[in-house]
Amino acid sequence: MNDSLTFLEEPEDTREEILKATYEAFCEHGYSGITIQRISDKFPKSKSLLYHHYDGKDDLLLEFLEFMLDQTEEQLPLQTGDGADVHIELVVDAMFSSGSMVDNVNFSRAMVELRAQAAHDEQYREYFSRTDRFTSKHVEHIIRSGIEQGVFQNVDPSETAALFQVMFVGTTTQQVTSNESIFEDCRAEFERYVETCLIDSKEE
Amino acid sequence: MNDSLTFLEEPEDTREEILKATYEAFCEHGYSGITIQRISDKFPKSKSLLYHHYDGKDDLLLEFLEFMLDQTEEQLPLQTGDGADVHIELVVDAMFSSGSMVDNVNFSRAMVELRAQAAHDEQYREYFSRTDRFTSKHVEHIIRSGIEQGVFQNVDPSETAALFQVMFVGTTTQQVTSNESIFEDCRAEFERYVETCLIDSKEE
Repeated sequence: MNDSLTFLEEPEDTREEILKATYEAFCEHGYSGITIQRISDKFPKSKSLLYHHYDGKDDLLLEFLEFMLDQTEEQLPLQTGDGADVHIELVVDAMFSSGSMVDNVNFSRAMVELRAQAAHDEQYREYFSRTDRFTSKHVEHIIRSGIEQGVFQNVDPSETAALFQVMFVGTTTQQVTSNESIFEDCRAEFERYVETCLIDSKEE
Repeated sequence: MNDSLTFLEEPEDTREEILKATYEAFCEHGYSGITIQRISDKFPKSKSLLYHHYDGKDDLLLEFLEFMLDQTEEQLPLQTGDGADVHIELVVDAMFSSGSMVDNVNFSRAMVELRAQAAHDEQYREYFSRTDRFTSKHVEHIIRSGIEQGVFQNVDPSETAALFQVMFVGTTTQQVTSNESIFEDCRAEFERYVETCLIDSKEE
């Protein structure tokens, strides 16, 4: 997800510099190890700016998450020239690549830790509910388009999107919390599901 | 999973009493809040027994997890009188009921927190790798039986089991970290997958 986030490459103002520092400290130390001090170690400007504006690490992390979601929402096009069958392949790619890139493993680990906070922290649960809704709506939109384009079967878009959403959570968590190498097998089966239960084979 | 664990009802010895106290403190306080002190508050015997045998909360939690896995392995029958199609329905039931029972929500929350520890703690990762392997092998066995019985299509058992495994992780995590009510939709779609991609419809 963060590949397309330009503020990590070229922060445009102090706020983006703070969020970049938060990202770096988050990847390096994870949720359990991140502190305002460690964020300020990554921040090139006066530390007092940080301490002045934020009450604690959760305050900063929640702002970082919001900003990342906003950027993702802005950048993800709902309509492109490609068909829905091409779109859904990209979604499946994303589902099985999260965390597999060396640079992203630490980020994925930290995000799994953070999501677990949502089990007892309403603020984090609110946030992850919104990212889930965003993901579901995005997939739902692709499914609807595919049905209209005649490339998908006449499935229930909400139900299909719900399965995709839970799979996203499952693959991300599985990949960083288990040494079992079941990813290729899981992907093969999920692709068989997409081929069999979603793609309209009349079109092939 | 814990429904069938008799040590929670009737601990047979001091060790089982310690593990029961660990379970209760774990459900009440979660991973982030559990301490040896809080476990000892639930323990009816001398606190020194606890402090003498265990180095810290992780030591106790890991033993608790091991014991729970052992008991589950012992109690879960690989062969019963029912067909594999009945078995797989029970597995799908378990996938979508984990944490939905009032008594179990706190346990599910705490387990999601604990699994997130595996993102940076090799001991927990080892443990969850073993539970994953156990789940996968169990599902794989049911799939193989179903193929032999002629009630399932000739699918790849490892691939199918891998998808089930990731779905287990996804449903457990999703349910306690998000307010979105996508469970019914997800279940409907997963059942459609089982009907379409697994069940051999010649037999119906």
